[in-house]
Amino acid sequence: MRRTSFAEMDCSIAQALDVVGEWWSLLILRDAFQGVRRFDAFQRRLGIARNILTERLQRLVAEGILTRRLYQEQPDRYEYRLTEKGLDLYPVIVGLLQWGDRWAAASEGPPVVLTHRDCGHQGTPVLACEHCGEKIGARDMQFRLRRRAAQ
Amino acid sequence: MRRTSFAEMDCSIAQALDVVGEWWSLLILRDAFQGVRRFDAFQRRLGIARNILTERLQRLVAEGILTRRLYQEQPDRYEYRLTEKGLDLYPVIVGLLQWGDRWAAASEGPPVVLTHRDCGHQGTPVLACEHCGEKIGARDMQFRLRRRAAQ
Repeated sequence: MRRTSFAEMDCSIAQALDVVGEWWSLLILRDAFQGVRRFDAFQRRLGIARNILTERLQRLVAEGILTRRLYQEQPDRYEYRLTEKGLDLYPVIVGLLQWGDRWAAASEGPPVVLTHRDCGHQGTPVLACEHCGEKIGARDMQFRLRRRAAQ
Repeated sequence: MRRTSFAEMDCSIAQALDVVGEWWSLLILRDAFQGVRRFDAFQRRLGIARNILTERLQRLVAEGILTRRLYQEQPDRYEYRLTEKGLDLYPVIVGLLQWGDRWAAASEGPPVVLTHRDCGHQGTPVLACEHCGEKIGARDMQFRLRRRAAQ
């Protein structure tokens, strides 16, 4: 149903949205991050029409975000796994999770809990400066155009 | 053009997408994070039809993500600012920026550069554990359902 492709905007956010900016794609990735790999499992969890799921999975494979691997023959069955490019979307998923937990979650509290394997701390990761390690919010960063968009 | 509301899924990610999971909304927020406040400026930067922009801004105001403030009378003109709820979407925008920079940006390199005001470091913030400060990737966190979704 999209009307415009953002791929030509000189903006990394627009280009990212051009690839993954579709609700179902992000929910498929959410499930992939939780370890879901098989078509039927995605379909059951998402309650999505099979043809739409097929199309979204194909797009994610074509974009190199998921890989498809045959795990059974006769009938042929495939599983889908996150590539490095896909795994790199983790901060987007975590950002949505954190925001939804704070601003949209039902009153019973967050439905999902994250735990840091290394230190055992339970909680959602935060944004931090790579250099000094300080926690980062919107006001802490300056946004600067490196070049002007073409007219 | 949406077919389904995700608001009823017991998942904070789905609920976040229900509110902001629309390309234009995220691009409006991107511009708001860069300091854009006025209708005409959004319109010029996004190249979006005025009626669609009006509708998206109204939705973002209704959701409490932007506030609308009269800054001129006769004719009345309004500006739009991020609320705390809106500012809290920063990690999502940064996540998309970072991913787009790495995987989708044009060959000339990232069009936007972020600088940490406090320490002067130039670069995109990273995800880190709130407890131990270690840098976090998808493999470092365990995802656990706190409760089963209602059947």
